[in-house]
Amino acid sequence: MTETISASAADRAASIMRRADELAAFTATSGEITRLYGTPEFRAALDLVTSWMEAAGMSVTIDQVGNLRGRYDADPAVPHPRSFAIGGHLDSVRDAGRYDGVLGVLTGIAFVEGLAARQRRLPFHVEVIACADEEGGRFVSYLGSRSLAGSLDPETLQMRDDAGITLADAIREFGGDPDRLAENRLDPGSLLGFVEVHIEQGPVLEQRGLPVGVVSAISGAIRASISIEGVAGHAGTVPMPMRRDALTGAAEFILAVERLAGEVDGMVGTVGQAAVGPGASNVIPGRVDLTVDLRHPNERLREEVARRLQDALAEIGERRQLATLWQDAHGYPTVECDIDFVSRLLDAIADEGYEAIQLASGAGHDAVPISEITPVAMLFVRCKGGISHNPAESITADDVEVAIRVLDRFLLTIATAVAASFQLDE
Amino acid sequence: MTETISASAADRAASIMRRADELAAFTATSGEITRLYGTPEFRAALDLVTSWMEAAGMSVTIDQVGNLRGRYDADPAVPHPRSFAIGGHLDSVRDAGRYDGVLGVLTGIAFVEGLAARQRRLPFHVEVIACADEEGGRFVSYLGSRSLAGSLDPETLQMRDDAGITLADAIREFGGDPDRLAENRLDPGSLLGFVEVHIEQGPVLEQRGLPVGVVSAISGAIRASISIEGVAGHAGTVPMPMRRDALTGAAEFILAVERLAGEVDGMVGTVGQAAVGPGASNVIPGRVDLTVDLRHPNERLREEVARRLQDALAEIGERRQLATLWQDAHGYPTVECDIDFVSRLLDAIADEGYEAIQLASGAGHDAVPISEITPVAMLFVRCKGGISHNPAESITADDVEVAIRVLDRFLLTIATAVAASFQLDE
Repeated sequence: MTETISASAADRAASIMRRADELAAFTATSGEITRLYGTPEFRAALDLVTSWMEAAGMSVTIDQVGNLRGRYDADPAVPHPRSFAIGGHLDSVRDAGRYDGVLGVLTGIAFVEGLAARQRRLPFHVEVIACADEEGGRFVSYLGSRSLAGSLDPETLQMRDDAGITLADAIREFGGDPDRLAENRLDPGSLLGFVEVHIEQGPVLEQRGLPVGVVSAISGAIRASISIEGVAGHAGTVPMPMRRDALTGAAEFILAVERLAGEVDGMVGTVGQAAVGPGASNVIPGRVDLTVDLRHPNERLREEVARRLQDALAEIGERRQLATLWQDAHGYPTVECDIDFVSRLLDAIADEGYEAIQLASGAGHDAVPISEITPVAMLFVRCKGGISHNPAESITADDVEVAIRVLDRFLLTIATAVAASFQLDE
Repeated sequence: MTETISASAADRAASIMRRADELAAFTATSGEITRLYGTPEFRAALDLVTSWMEAAGMSVTIDQVGNLRGRYDADPAVPHPRSFAIGGHLDSVRDAGRYDGVLGVLTGIAFVEGLAARQRRLPFHVEVIACADEEGGRFVSYLGSRSLAGSLDPETLQMRDDAGITLADAIREFGGDPDRLAENRLDPGSLLGFVEVHIEQGPVLEQRGLPVGVVSAISGAIRASISIEGVAGHAGTVPMPMRRDALTGAAEFILAVERLAGEVDGMVGTVGQAAVGPGASNVIPGRVDLTVDLRHPNERLREEVARRLQDALAEIGERRQLATLWQDAHGYPTVECDIDFVSRLLDAIADEGYEAIQLASGAGHDAVPISEITPVAMLFVRCKGGISHNPAESITADDVEVAIRVLDRFLLTIATAVAASFQLDE
C-alpha cells in the first residue's frame, strides 16, 4: 500500500489514529491488546512500523535487545551531525489500551513524514526509537531504554518470564545477541536530546480543557514486594480466633496503602498484584504475595509514606502472628525534564493558541533511563477520563493534530538553534 | 513385599503410619502432597491401596467414576448379607497433609486385617471405599460419594478442570464410562451404614487431651463466588480519589467476612481464593474474584451471616462505585450422624477407658451425600494444632491405635446386633 506522504498535520493525525488501530490487532489474546516484548505479536508490530518508517525515508535497524530504530538522516551538508531522538514503545501491559507508547512512535514517524513531504532535512539526524519492554510486562521495565543508556544490569539477562524463559534466551530468539548489548549504548556526545509524545494517563488536561501539556518532571517511584505468611488450614475447622490467615492480614495492608497514600496530596499508592496460596475455597490462605507501587515527585514524601507502610505491615504481622517481609523492588528517583526543552514546548503550545501548562508525570517513561545520557522532554496529550492501561484508553484526532503541530514547532526551533550554532562556529 | 497380618491394634496402627508415608510420595509436585483426582499420582495411590486390600483378602473393584471399593465378604453362612461401608478418600487438596481422607481408607483396611488375622467373618460384608475427588480439587467435592448416593447431577460431567478437560473425558481417561455412572449407585436396602475415621482438623480434642471423639453432626456450609469490578488504570496517574480499585473493595469485604463470622460463636468464614485482574504491579486492579465459605451447624445462623455479608458487599460496591456480584455456590445442609451409631461409638470409647465426647465437624465429608442413602457415623482422631490441609498435618500412632480399637469395638457391636436380628428372624 503506497500512501502519499502529506505535510498536513490533520492528515498525519488521521494516519496516526488509523495506525494505532492497526497495531491494536497485534495481540496475544484476541479481544484485548496484550503485546509483550519478544512475542510473535510484538515482532509483527515491529515489522509493520518498519514499513512505515521506510516509506517515510528512514533507515531502520533493530539493536541487540530489540529496540527498533528508524533514522532520518541529517542534511548531508552538515558535518558530523548529532541526533535528536523521539521515543515510544510497542510493547503493552496485559489488556492494554492502544495509545500508550504507540503514540510516541507514531508521532515520531509523523514528524519525519512532515519533513519528507517537504523534502526537508534538518541539521541533525532524527531518530525514532521504539524501546523494548518499556512496561516490563515480560521481563523488566525500561529494558530497551536502559540498554540504550548503558545502564542495564547484566544480571538482568538471567531473569525469567512467566514461562521460565530467561531474558538472554528471549533476546536470542528475537535475533539479538545478549553478549553484545554494550553495542546498543547511545553515545551521549552524539545526542542532542530526547522527546516523547505520550497520553497523559491522568485527568488534569481533561479537567483543564486542554489538548496538550508539558511534562515538568517524571515522579519517582518506590516499589516493593511484600510477602505475608500465616498458617494454611481447613476452612471448616479452625476457629476464627485461632487463625493465622495471610489474606485477612493482606487485606488490612491493602487498605493501609490506600489510606496512607491518600493522606498526601498528589501521592498515589497501588497494590496491583496479590497472589493467594494455596488458593482453594476451602483452605485458609497461608501466604499472600503483594506488590506496592508508590509515586510522588517529592522524594522525601515518598520515603515518609513508605516508612509508614512498613510500620503498618510490621504492626499487622505482630498483631496477627503473621511473618511479613518488605523487599524493596526496582523504583526510580524523580527525573526533571530539561528546562530549555520545557520552555520551548510551552512556547510552541502558546504559539498554537492554547494555554500552556506544566504537569508532573505520575507514570514512568523511557525518558527516565534516557535522562542519564541526554536532556529529555515529554509532551502529554489529553486522554478520556484519564484512563490508561485499559481497553477504554481514548484520545481524539484533533488533540493528536495539536500534538503534531507542537512537536513540529519544538523540533524546528531546535533545528534553528543548532543551525545558528554552526554559523557561530564558522 | 509379603507382610504377616497382625491382629494387634498397635501393629496395625504402626502399619497405618507407614502406609500414610508411602502414599504421601504420590504427588504431582515433589516436596509437597498434591494428588488430584484422576491424575497419574492418584492412579498410583489406588494401585498401592489395591495391593493392600487384596493382601487383606478383599476383592477390589474400581467403579465408573473412580471410587475404589474393596470388599471383605460376609460369613458365607449368612443368607443375603448386607454391607457396612467404611469410607475415606485418596485425593488431596494442593499442598496437603498426609492423613486427611487417607486415614479413613487405612483404618478400614486395618479393621479388615484384624478380622483376616483372626480368620473371622462378620454377618455382613465390610466394604472399604476410597471415594473419588472428595476435596473437589479437580472437579467437584464429593464427586465419588455423590455418585454412590445416586445424587450426582449429570451436568457435572461437563465441568472442566483448570486445563479445560471435562469431567466426562477425565472419567474416560481413568477407565470409567460416564454414561454408566448410574451403576455406581449403592442400593440403600443393601447397606447397614457408613463410618469414617478422620483427623479432627480442629483443636478440640487436643485442648481436651483426648485421642478420639465422636462426630455428632457435620456443619452445613454456605458457599458463594463473589466478583468485584472496578476500573483498571495506571498506578502512577489516576489520583486516589478518582480510583475505582477492585482490590481495595475486595480487601474491605475480606475483613467483613472475618468480622461477621467472628461475631457468632462456632461460626467460621473464609475467603480462600482471590484472583486479581489484570494483575500487574503498575496497574490498578479492575477486577477481583473471591470465594466465600461459611460454616456452622445451625442453618438459621449461617443464613443470617450470609445475608449480612451480602449487605456489606452491596454497601462496599455502592460507596466505592464498584459492580459487585454474589453468586451462591454449592453449599450443603447440616447432616446429623445416626444416634444409634453415635451412642455405640461413645460406649466403645468409654470401654477403652477414655472420656467420650461428641463434637460437630466443621469440615464436610463423604458422609454428607452418603447420609442420603444410609445412616452415617464418624470418629475423629486428635491432630496436632488442629492443623489440616497443610503439610504440617500430624497425628500419633498411639491415637491411631485407640481409633482402631474403637472401630473394632463399634463394628463388632454392630455385628452382634445383626447376628441377634437373624436369631430373632429365625
